[in-house]
Amino acid sequence: MVEANLTAARDVPREADSPRDSDVAHFGADKPLKLDSGVVLSPFQVAYKTYGTLNAERSNAVLVCHALTGDQHVASEHPVTGKGGWWETMIGPRKPIDTERYFIICANVIGGCMGTTGPASTDPRTGKPYALSFPVVTIRDMVRAQAMLVDYLGIDTLFAVVGGSMGGMQVLQWAASYPERVFSALPIACATRHSAQNIAFHEVGRQAIMADPEWRGGNYLTEGTDPQHRGLAVARMAAHITYLSDAALHRKFGRKFQDREKVTFSFDADFQVESYLRYQGISFVERFDANSYLYLTRAMDYFDLAADCDGGLVANAFRNSPTRFCVISFTSDWLFPTSESRAIVHALNAAGARVSFAEIVTDKGHDAFLLDEPELLAIVRGFLDGARKARGLSGAP
Amino acid sequence: MVEANLTAARDVPREADSPRDSDVAHFGADKPLKLDSGVVLSPFQVAYKTYGTLNAERSNAVLVCHALTGDQHVASEHPVTGKGGWWETMIGPRKPIDTERYFIICANVIGGCMGTTGPASTDPRTGKPYALSFPVVTIRDMVRAQAMLVDYLGIDTLFAVVGGSMGGMQVLQWAASYPERVFSALPIACATRHSAQNIAFHEVGRQAIMADPEWRGGNYLTEGTDPQHRGLAVARMAAHITYLSDAALHRKFGRKFQDREKVTFSFDADFQVESYLRYQGISFVERFDANSYLYLTRAMDYFDLAADCDGGLVANAFRNSPTRFCVISFTSDWLFPTSESRAIVHALNAAGARVSFAEIVTDKGHDAFLLDEPELLAIVRGFLDGARKARGLSGAP
Repeated sequence: MVEANLTAARDVPREADSPRDSDVAHFGADKPLKLDSGVVLSPFQVAYKTYGTLNAERSNAVLVCHALTGDQHVASEHPVTGKGGWWETMIGPRKPIDTERYFIICANVIGGCMGTTGPASTDPRTGKPYALSFPVVTIRDMVRAQAMLVDYLGIDTLFAVVGGSMGGMQVLQWAASYPERVFSALPIACATRHSAQNIAFHEVGRQAIMADPEWRGGNYLTEGTDPQHRGLAVARMAAHITYLSDAALHRKFGRKFQDREKVTFSFDADFQVESYLRYQGISFVERFDANSYLYLTRAMDYFDLAADCDGGLVANAFRNSPTRFCVISFTSDWLFPTSESRAIVHALNAAGARVSFAEIVTDKGHDAFLLDEPELLAIVRGFLDGARKARGLSGAP
Repeated sequence: MVEANLTAARDVPREADSPRDSDVAHFGADKPLKLDSGVVLSPFQVAYKTYGTLNAERSNAVLVCHALTGDQHVASEHPVTGKGGWWETMIGPRKPIDTERYFIICANVIGGCMGTTGPASTDPRTGKPYALSFPVVTIRDMVRAQAMLVDYLGIDTLFAVVGGSMGGMQVLQWAASYPERVFSALPIACATRHSAQNIAFHEVGRQAIMADPEWRGGNYLTEGTDPQHRGLAVARMAAHITYLSDAALHRKFGRKFQDREKVTFSFDADFQVESYLRYQGISFVERFDANSYLYLTRAMDYFDLAADCDGGLVANAFRNSPTRFCVISFTSDWLFPTSESRAIVHALNAAGARVSFAEIVTDKGHDAFLLDEPELLAIVRGFLDGARKARGLSGAP
């Protein structure tokens, strides 16, 4: 059975209030966050990381938006896991998002658990974690908070907004909500709305978490229950399958046995793929908050750009957009298949926006956006090079 | 959260020993079941249903093999749920598997929970349910038990063996283990071995069950814990998504709301697809045993017909097979995609076996084999009509 590392799991509440290796922007009573639900969140904080140097014109900022289980530690060591940043293939000196050219900002989303206000954060009114008293947030709420951070940093226009999966949803929302503030946008492996199948998978994950009696109606932090979060581990295992492809799983594991010659006629992890999945569940629980998982999956489920538009047409979200778009999908991504990216491109075309589109051939599934995919890296580099010239950015800050 | 009907869930242990509306074949000490694990299971029983009349030549018997969560109640009311048989579209008077022409047998598999010996059955040595002391069984073990039932019924050769999914695996195993006893075989929506992705999904389900503290190491029946089996409900929810297709979920539910006009900013089942999935989880728990789910998923994971063959070639399982095969797949089935059925066909071709193959165009996913799919029904009818002529069966018993 899945047993998690308890010591590491206890780091989660600490990070939520006092994130290590991060900057924190505090927004007091004068700067409330007005949420889509109607709730006003105040005070709140945003934990973020920056890399590179902001130029004198303040025109070289790139905002990176993280995915469901990502965080602000995009290009440097993670304070809980000790592992490298989650997008170090993409971001660094002379990498496609070049820290020698750009000022890169990555912020933990509202509802997250790595230092931006979320359900694991202490509610100043009670002195206890919000837990389920935290308001349900949306992708647009995440973007609103990021816009306040960008204001706080004294940046008017972002040179680029980039992200994959839930990060890509934020990119689309940025371009829709603040078109004049987004010079270029790279929504990767995402969609303008969450599909029924994706909502279904999220619901399974949430039910797995809520079925765990240690979850205690969300009050595990105050009730001091065992933070093993087996429910969260199961949720992660189910989700992880959707991030890969059948072909990638076959290539990587097939029916290979784990440290044995043949089946054991038991429920041990006979197959490598079982062992791998169990590890994914266990290691995730060490760094993530179960309630945060509920909130962020819900935000993705609720995402439907068209629902807010005139006539329910996504194109109207981007009417007269000055932003330059680069939409990217992966052939083997079945969570956000290419058809979803094509729908984004069609909407952008209908809106008369400037858009390029690349479908990258790979068997690595949705996860491809996080991996060392040469074609992805080359396309992002090339698109940003073109945008840099159009923006009149000099070679160095 | 998922809450199951407790009264119905308590029916499960009763069915395991004394199945209602079923015939039971008892195999005593003189007829042990020798399992692939090396364990000898004795005594054991097989619960089964028959429909139609066995002809004087005993040549019109059709064995129907059920899928993971199916049972012997294939064409008549289910004693626990009160619903109709699971394949009434296929089996009945003048239906493709015609009860006026054929003598249809459907037996609960070894490891099941509807009256054939499995983990919910009482171990005669202890007077308590086997629970996890039940031996791990394989698809071949299921088929061995069925062959003993067919002997018990005095039938030498089956006119046809038919089944989908795990049932299809049994069909293939029947043709491999007892080629002279299988005149015709219809493996539907299956494969010669379980894929890494499918093992992964099964492992998620098992972890969900084992993470449930009410599971008690499998001893919930003796410890009298709450039989709500939330873990089993979560397992079912995850599996159920894999039985459908993205397109079917989109067509059926899309992003439609459940009894509300807009999102509620909560974790209620806002979307119809959430409500539907929760219902699938709850209703499954009422009729199925959690340990049985562990054993049957394990049997599917272990299935690898090639592993037992000379040179690891599936074709060698069917060398000189006298059986007539009809292999059927569905275009939108991503659990057992058409490529898996093509691999069966290639193996049968390489073995020189007689085989026809149909890929049915549908957006209904894996579940299509259970649904009212006219093309499926027509193909099964046509194939059996041809086989009946070849077998020299008269029109009526």
